[in-house]
Amino acid sequence: MNTYEKTGKYDFVTEQYLLDFRGRVTIPMIGNYLMHAASNHASKRGFGFSDMTEKHTAWVLSRLAIEINRYPAMSEPVTVYTWIDEVGRLFTCRCFEVIDSMGAPVAYARSIWAAIDLQTRRPAPLDVEGLSIYIADRPCPIEKPGKIAVVEQETKGVPYQVKYSDLDINGHFNSVKYMEHFLDLFDLDMFQKKEVKRFEISYLSEGRYNMPLTLHKKETQPDKYIMAICNGGKAICRASALWAQAFNAN
Amino acid sequence: MNTYEKTGKYDFVTEQYLLDFRGRVTIPMIGNYLMHAASNHASKRGFGFSDMTEKHTAWVLSRLAIEINRYPAMSEPVTVYTWIDEVGRLFTCRCFEVIDSMGAPVAYARSIWAAIDLQTRRPAPLDVEGLSIYIADRPCPIEKPGKIAVVEQETKGVPYQVKYSDLDINGHFNSVKYMEHFLDLFDLDMFQKKEVKRFEISYLSEGRYNMPLTLHKKETQPDKYIMAICNGGKAICRASALWAQAFNAN
Repeated sequence: MNTYEKTGKYDFVTEQYLLDFRGRVTIPMIGNYLMHAASNHASKRGFGFSDMTEKHTAWVLSRLAIEINRYPAMSEPVTVYTWIDEVGRLFTCRCFEVIDSMGAPVAYARSIWAAIDLQTRRPAPLDVEGLSIYIADRPCPIEKPGKIAVVEQETKGVPYQVKYSDLDINGHFNSVKYMEHFLDLFDLDMFQKKEVKRFEISYLSEGRYNMPLTLHKKETQPDKYIMAICNGGKAICRASALWAQAFNAN
Repeated sequence: MNTYEKTGKYDFVTEQYLLDFRGRVTIPMIGNYLMHAASNHASKRGFGFSDMTEKHTAWVLSRLAIEINRYPAMSEPVTVYTWIDEVGRLFTCRCFEVIDSMGAPVAYARSIWAAIDLQTRRPAPLDVEGLSIYIADRPCPIEKPGKIAVVEQETKGVPYQVKYSDLDINGHFNSVKYMEHFLDLFDLDMFQKKEVKRFEISYLSEGRYNMPLTLHKKETQPDKYIMAICNGGKAICRASALWAQAFNAN
């Protein structure tokens, strides 16, 4: 199998009615494009959602890092490439490249996935041999998502209760919805002056319906923020955002 | 021009990572499919978002009613047809039919749109002659969206503040986001036992960033609810939901 066959390619046109107040694609929109690509790439190669369900397992997104060079604007065609970079006994790393119609990379992303047993909710071992044949040797020039520092002990937190619209098909807090809640911790003013250059998220445990949560945020260095969503003082999700001066020309 | 040329046809495959905890398409997802269809249908015929911007106007969704026969499940192909039903001096009515892969209608919708002047934010007259050539004579067997009764005087309301993720490209509360907030007023228990058969929404004035809102809900007849989102006691959006026993087989 060559690199071409190992890589998935998915085309989108940015939807006007989903853009933010600046007329730009949002990080959750990019998140949904990546989920679409990951989900279809896996299904077509025999390890998608339904294949996992048959084995009483499910993929869970563990970590994700997105770096953005330019936020696409209205009705812009974008293409997402996705491929597998690494396969371990418990984790697999999937990369993404998002290009615009001129072929210029507008974003890169790295994600780390684990499988869980649907009954026990414990990690399930991966089919290392089966997955490894899809490993593609293709560069993804951004750093892997790493450990995100603790923020909840120093900040009070904004209360939030998990709602119907937050839940995914497994009845847990939807991976992309977490991104929305983290970004909503920033003032609109920030989005007017700056852009998120790198966004990183780490999913630690499952958020459930009606869970009383607290949302925390702290600036650790100029333009560098760490965040957490906690349940009873224990983080269920962490994120970090690195902001830069607005880099879109228009 | 025949009915065929007047009608737009848009294909989707329901995205697994956007489904609700029941593995079903959500009303906001259907809302996004309808917005996609409306937006593309209008653009292709010369009265889309960009055409309106050139004339310093914008379309605003005034009312929408959706009736659902069956909620599509995971990875199901659905097709949305959309066409113009009526054109008046200030309002135009656009209909939708959503069918499944067997051609069975899973949902119908009726929407009412107005144009506003981007400077004055006041209603702008429509190009009645220009739009009327697209009127298609095609049945949409559901009632038009109507006036929704006042609920806010009798209920206390849940406080909510408009956030970054709630805003659309005009810097106002996103039409589909309102649907999410209305549905989140219902307990998960309700979604487990029943389904929304008809959902109706009426947009009264613009929701803006940081606006302190209250969300109201009241059952007026068994399984019939009216809702409102208010700013300083004045409704900016109203909705109603008619629930029925769960009608999906699996």
